[in-house]
Amino acid sequence: MNDAFPLSAPSSLAARRRALAALMQGTPALLCAGAPVSRNYPANVFPFRASSHFLYLVGRAMAGCYVLVSEGGTTLFAEPPDRDDALWHGPRPTLEQLGSQLGVEAVAPLAELLAHVQRLRDVATLPPPDHASARALSEVLGREIVVASGPSLTHAPDVALADAMIALRLRHDEAARAQLRAAAKASAAAHVAGMRATRGAQTEAEVCSVIVAELRRRGMDDAYGPIVTVHGEILHAHGHEGALQPGDLLLCDVGGESPEGWASDITRTWPVSGRFSATQRAIYDVVLEANVRAIDRVRPGVRYREAHEVAKRTIVEGRVSLGVLRGAVDGLLERGAANLFFPHGVGHLLGLDVHDLEDLGDRAGYAPGRNRSARFGDRYLRLDRDLEPGMAVTIEPGFYQVPGILSDPELTAPLGADLDREALARFSDVRGIRIEDDVVCTEGDPEVLTSACPKRAADVEAIVSSG
Amino acid sequence: MNDAFPLSAPSSLAARRRALAALMQGTPALLCAGAPVSRNYPANVFPFRASSHFLYLVGRAMAGCYVLVSEGGTTLFAEPPDRDDALWHGPRPTLEQLGSQLGVEAVAPLAELLAHVQRLRDVATLPPPDHASARALSEVLGREIVVASGPSLTHAPDVALADAMIALRLRHDEAARAQLRAAAKASAAAHVAGMRATRGAQTEAEVCSVIVAELRRRGMDDAYGPIVTVHGEILHAHGHEGALQPGDLLLCDVGGESPEGWASDITRTWPVSGRFSATQRAIYDVVLEANVRAIDRVRPGVRYREAHEVAKRTIVEGRVSLGVLRGAVDGLLERGAANLFFPHGVGHLLGLDVHDLEDLGDRAGYAPGRNRSARFGDRYLRLDRDLEPGMAVTIEPGFYQVPGILSDPELTAPLGADLDREALARFSDVRGIRIEDDVVCTEGDPEVLTSACPKRAADVEAIVSSG
Repeated sequence: MNDAFPLSAPSSLAARRRALAALMQGTPALLCAGAPVSRNYPANVFPFRASSHFLYLVGRAMAGCYVLVSEGGTTLFAEPPDRDDALWHGPRPTLEQLGSQLGVEAVAPLAELLAHVQRLRDVATLPPPDHASARALSEVLGREIVVASGPSLTHAPDVALADAMIALRLRHDEAARAQLRAAAKASAAAHVAGMRATRGAQTEAEVCSVIVAELRRRGMDDAYGPIVTVHGEILHAHGHEGALQPGDLLLCDVGGESPEGWASDITRTWPVSGRFSATQRAIYDVVLEANVRAIDRVRPGVRYREAHEVAKRTIVEGRVSLGVLRGAVDGLLERGAANLFFPHGVGHLLGLDVHDLEDLGDRAGYAPGRNRSARFGDRYLRLDRDLEPGMAVTIEPGFYQVPGILSDPELTAPLGADLDREALARFSDVRGIRIEDDVVCTEGDPEVLTSACPKRAADVEAIVSSG
Repeated sequence: MNDAFPLSAPSSLAARRRALAALMQGTPALLCAGAPVSRNYPANVFPFRASSHFLYLVGRAMAGCYVLVSEGGTTLFAEPPDRDDALWHGPRPTLEQLGSQLGVEAVAPLAELLAHVQRLRDVATLPPPDHASARALSEVLGREIVVASGPSLTHAPDVALADAMIALRLRHDEAARAQLRAAAKASAAAHVAGMRATRGAQTEAEVCSVIVAELRRRGMDDAYGPIVTVHGEILHAHGHEGALQPGDLLLCDVGGESPEGWASDITRTWPVSGRFSATQRAIYDVVLEANVRAIDRVRPGVRYREAHEVAKRTIVEGRVSLGVLRGAVDGLLERGAANLFFPHGVGHLLGLDVHDLEDLGDRAGYAPGRNRSARFGDRYLRLDRDLEPGMAVTIEPGFYQVPGILSDPELTAPLGADLDREALARFSDVRGIRIEDDVVCTEGDPEVLTSACPKRAADVEAIVSSG
């Protein structure tokens, strides 16, 4: 089934390494793949997930390996095959074979890394994803390297490397787009499988198992912890114990990643019974309208925050037309009316990480000089850059009735009587709705990678009902 | 579907804590639940798996929490609910509610942990599973605590705590046995689902997805990385890219863990076509005989190594009767004939970890004064204790044709012409077979927890063929 996944051509990866070397202007860059992390005791490990920077440059999850990119070319440092492989892991290629498979100029034994690096000056690196690798990198570089923790870089070559990787990874090349397309397509199929399985299921766990199985069947891992919940109003509801009731909406935020590590991130919300109630349908259509309008803003030169604001405005307009809010839309927005029901950002960068480049903190998501808003809800916006062709983002507006927010006087007071609680009570069968797509900014219309995943209410109903 | 899992009664957990306090003779024991670990960037985490010691005493995976057990009673340290819960995680119980749910004498805010511990002397702890918790514990205790790395304990109170936990966890109480039974039953059902799905599948990944989906449907996580492979001779074949061919045997080593963390560990090997070839069937029956005979040795007072030796002998006897080996069985065993084809131990402790207590190294698996063998194969035996009622172990003999072993002169030379390679070549359609059950030692016959998972060749064929 891995046929579904195009392998990136070695030449594409070589082009990335050359581009990085050019941006680094003579400073060598050393990036580690990272090491598997333990699940309670050392020999029991989570599925290995390599560092995204390493995957970007090498295209393969090679635990414990390092890649050194410099003007003179690339050297990959890897463990040569040994006698134990035969029993434990199966045969491995020789270093020469590895070099030609990956199109890397040189492959050296891992044992030579330290000596090799000691001959260089000012080697740049980025924080690795795990502590064992941080320790190993610290030893190799002779300075303290800590695990990825956002915007903590201070060493000048590392800062330059972070900026170079951001410059490269913000705009996806063709090989990356092919990976993202394949990941989105497979994840869309997984959602459809989940829709079909819902009417026969008793619990969230059963639907989740079907969605995840479809990803696994296609050779994909989860890009993040799946959310499959009848409590969509709890944004990080990662448990799946809930029972499904006929009147419930099921919110599913699940995406797989390709074998090379490229992510998809899709949310759909569907009625457990196969039919939205009139009130659910009314709100669903507002969220869908916000999704569609915001996607239409994913165009070169548009500030991403505009997509966020368009989604907010659409949601407030919808509430006004449903009688839940009263007054002028501009004033309602000013008073936080959107954030009450849509208390998160409209989306984020998408790439090798589902929140792409988030290991580098807001340095990646926020253009220089731009900062997070102080306002509740808006402060969770993860991206505030002007869009360029090749950028991939998610667009994921939502509507939630969060008891803790709606009972918070600080958040609701500015709206006063313009929030009609009686009207709102009519929509009590809507706890949370989110509709999320993956979108690439192009010179023409936005490319919606997740278009194979149905989202019109009637289409969703038809698929759920067919199950 | 979580109905399938009995929740351990708070009184059972309280009894464990009292037993621990009694063994510790006045020394307080502080154990942390551990923290979620990142998958490439901090906000993307693997499913949280709490420390097994914490789960043993508290029964619930509470990230970031600590339990302090002393003669005066138990105090649980937890984060009180806060305003953000409403939006991100859903409502949490108050500390008072938590105490009564868990049957813990006292629950205090996490912020009070440091001051509380500073009033005590010589607090014992055990290595936590993750680096963030090791750092936090080091700060609380004012001494360096490192991540679980086997037998590295030196601080006397910690050594005493390790020995006390081993004493308690080696023999499972009724609540633990109920958890193990439920985990085994659900994992057996998952294997049967995998057998049924095989004839319609093209790849290992498809079968794996069905097995894992059955676990997820029942609310279980994987107890370890699933092995589903047509290359059973590669012991840690964790990829699932392989295509299924009609003549292949599919080796599946997959087990789930209960929501309280108790593991199951089952291996079955079945023919992709639904029918073993005559040669496959002949070897399968030998491995099954080894499995059955070794299980019969799981009795009080028997040294577990005997089960290992019985399995080795059965496998050599089988090879002799199949004409692959020539000569007296004792001599063949002496010359390493079993280890050539069965190069690992017959099993290990089973409990909250699939290799139970392996975070404490051979201190748990090997009785005082016993050490690992130097011989290839035997040195991988993880358990060498005299069995006692309540101990749970796996029994997992296997037969593998590992090219790297069979071509290794050091390993094969002692057998000389008594290894008949022409006869062996007739069995070339057998790469790897393993049959693994979970067994509890009782005063009577061994309790096979995994008996719901078919293993007789005819039974396995019938289920695969029904798919």
